[in-house]
Amino acid sequence: MKLDLSGISSFISQAALEPWLSKAQTALETLKKGSGAGGEMTGWESIAALKPAVQDCKTYAERLSEISDAVLVVGIGGSYLGAKAVYEIFAPPDKKCEPIFVGNTLSGAYYERVIKSLEKRDFSVIVISKSGTTTEPAVAFRIFEQLLVKRYGASEASKRIIAVTNPGGGALRKICESKNYPMLTIPDSVGGRYSIFTPAGLLPLAVAGIDIDALINGAERSSELNSELAVQYAAARQALYNSGKKIEVVSAWEPNFRWLGEWYKQLFGESEGKDGKGIFPVSLELTADLHSMGQYMQDGERTVFETFLWAESASSITVPSAEDNFDGFNNIAGRKLDEVNRVALDATKAAHIEGGVPAIEIEIGHLCANNIGELLYFFMLTCGISGYISGVNPFDQPGVEAYKKKMKQLL
Amino acid sequence: MKLDLSGISSFISQAALEPWLSKAQTALETLKKGSGAGGEMTGWESIAALKPAVQDCKTYAERLSEISDAVLVVGIGGSYLGAKAVYEIFAPPDKKCEPIFVGNTLSGAYYERVIKSLEKRDFSVIVISKSGTTTEPAVAFRIFEQLLVKRYGASEASKRIIAVTNPGGGALRKICESKNYPMLTIPDSVGGRYSIFTPAGLLPLAVAGIDIDALINGAERSSELNSELAVQYAAARQALYNSGKKIEVVSAWEPNFRWLGEWYKQLFGESEGKDGKGIFPVSLELTADLHSMGQYMQDGERTVFETFLWAESASSITVPSAEDNFDGFNNIAGRKLDEVNRVALDATKAAHIEGGVPAIEIEIGHLCANNIGELLYFFMLTCGISGYISGVNPFDQPGVEAYKKKMKQLL
Repeated sequence: MKLDLSGISSFISQAALEPWLSKAQTALETLKKGSGAGGEMTGWESIAALKPAVQDCKTYAERLSEISDAVLVVGIGGSYLGAKAVYEIFAPPDKKCEPIFVGNTLSGAYYERVIKSLEKRDFSVIVISKSGTTTEPAVAFRIFEQLLVKRYGASEASKRIIAVTNPGGGALRKICESKNYPMLTIPDSVGGRYSIFTPAGLLPLAVAGIDIDALINGAERSSELNSELAVQYAAARQALYNSGKKIEVVSAWEPNFRWLGEWYKQLFGESEGKDGKGIFPVSLELTADLHSMGQYMQDGERTVFETFLWAESASSITVPSAEDNFDGFNNIAGRKLDEVNRVALDATKAAHIEGGVPAIEIEIGHLCANNIGELLYFFMLTCGISGYISGVNPFDQPGVEAYKKKMKQLL
Repeated sequence: MKLDLSGISSFISQAALEPWLSKAQTALETLKKGSGAGGEMTGWESIAALKPAVQDCKTYAERLSEISDAVLVVGIGGSYLGAKAVYEIFAPPDKKCEPIFVGNTLSGAYYERVIKSLEKRDFSVIVISKSGTTTEPAVAFRIFEQLLVKRYGASEASKRIIAVTNPGGGALRKICESKNYPMLTIPDSVGGRYSIFTPAGLLPLAVAGIDIDALINGAERSSELNSELAVQYAAARQALYNSGKKIEVVSAWEPNFRWLGEWYKQLFGESEGKDGKGIFPVSLELTADLHSMGQYMQDGERTVFETFLWAESASSITVPSAEDNFDGFNNIAGRKLDEVNRVALDATKAAHIEGGVPAIEIEIGHLCANNIGELLYFFMLTCGISGYISGVNPFDQPGVEAYKKKMKQLL
């Protein structure tokens, strides 16, 4: 993995960056020691401690995928976005067992569509919830548990349900114990948005046929090699934020990185957006969004910085030549599309920097599960450091309770 | 359609709003007269002038869908997002003729997946480009035109290609004239992001089986009835922006409104993000994103205002009751999911206002093509007014050229 900060140098001098680097280094040490705010929630930091669950995930995944054309993955927030992000990147075109993400909405129309799509397919359910009392997944689990029982009977249904939940107590654990549903656990020391390398992320991905060994090995490599890069990225983010760049736009160059953008927004938004402060996280899909938010990036309010995300693709597709050449593109005929895509990144980066937008670039190398695992861990480590620099607890989310309380009153 | 501004009253008093309302009224008149900046690009404002193209769209759509399982829709930016947004809302579960949106990326991997998905399907191509010289759609059109010719031969291929382009000149028109591909037109007076009610939006939607008559009739009703609401919304947006609320978050309550959010971002971002200013447009999908950006909305930097978007769903799905009630939700058993969803909106709105986020609400009534047409037109009218208030030309996009120029040099 490479991190390139040269695109911020005309906005933040090396001298101005130094104090932030020093703060970031201290924050890293605090994080590693577990002595900072929310230190009890840094169990995600040691990948070695999470690895033993991988085999369980593979075992249960095999069992489910053998008997299912589709698996309902019930979860919201951190019990959803990690698996969804990685799945969308690597989804095999011939889906043998398709994960369908539910429990992340209260739209009746959405559930009607999902139920209809199950009519001719065998299905199972993975339910992911630490507490079991979050409205959306609890309601969805009621809907699909009952559908399973109606379709297969209670005994067969119990072989088609697996829960991922707290090791200690909680409503979901009680349900599973009373009905003999098997359970895998999310450690108490890992919060939802940091849970991609626990069964919350790994089990649905294994069911979908994605190489979770490669994914978690990439994370482990990241934990060994990338601390210094995370310190640099976190320092740059906070230096930019404190210089008035309030919005980070993560611009990825593959359409199927869209949900990685959603995962990134949860991770950073929920970790840093508190106490009246926080970098506002935004994600773009380029080049598509150059024809959408490109105008704003180039010429709108200058309170934005951009983080480019680049992965090498293995595609060999080239620009065809055209006899008539009315569109004038024969000059790039024969060149790989991905090479043109990379040129677009270089051009965009240069143009945006000239337009007043500091640019960071993260290159992950070849697009594979291993390198995506490395990237996700790198983002999580950066997020912890960045939160500590800004003086917040990057592992809690007290603000999420406000609407829940009001909702309980109104219901 | 209803617009509720009561959720901004504790942030902007009626007296403080008045001057903005007056500016907005003037801006509306300027827009209607066509006498403001970019006045020559306000052809979208008269739906009556656009309606005659509807029948052509239906005729060609029928022709294509009879011979196709899939239609490649080649386009980027405004030649893409309108159709994509409406398609995603109304996509029929049993897709007889699926639109596949291409020409909006330079990812080789994406095109490999699309080409593979066409192996066993008959397909056709709609190519949408005003100039015909934008890199992404031009390259994609080369790829899929050649694939068509290879599959069906040149003569049959010419029956499977329809272009939507400039009435005057341009590269795409030249290609079509030389090969006898039929063409529909986007009027010169309508820019890409305002083109949803031209064949750029309507033809792909008609192919997908969506009721484009209802859609455009909704737009026409909007043009007759909603000027005053657009004035109020535009005034509120600019009053909030000038009071330090720099980011507008449009929060929709159906998962399939996700692409409507993307369309909104292009419309407003590209119209207002210039001359070093502009409200930064963001979209959320709730309730999913309450467990993602909810923390930031509640408690992050107080530079955000929120616009809630609500549509009545016809779904009758209810919360099931559970014998054990371990999760405690039997108290809402039997209630419609969409009713709970609406309660979640009310709770979220109240919580966010208390947290310091001004809230606007747009209610479109029943979720149907007619009301979505009304909403889209309302957004476009608001956008033109809002741009004029802030002193920019809401119909150009000079900043988009910057990276294109650099890209030409680098290639």
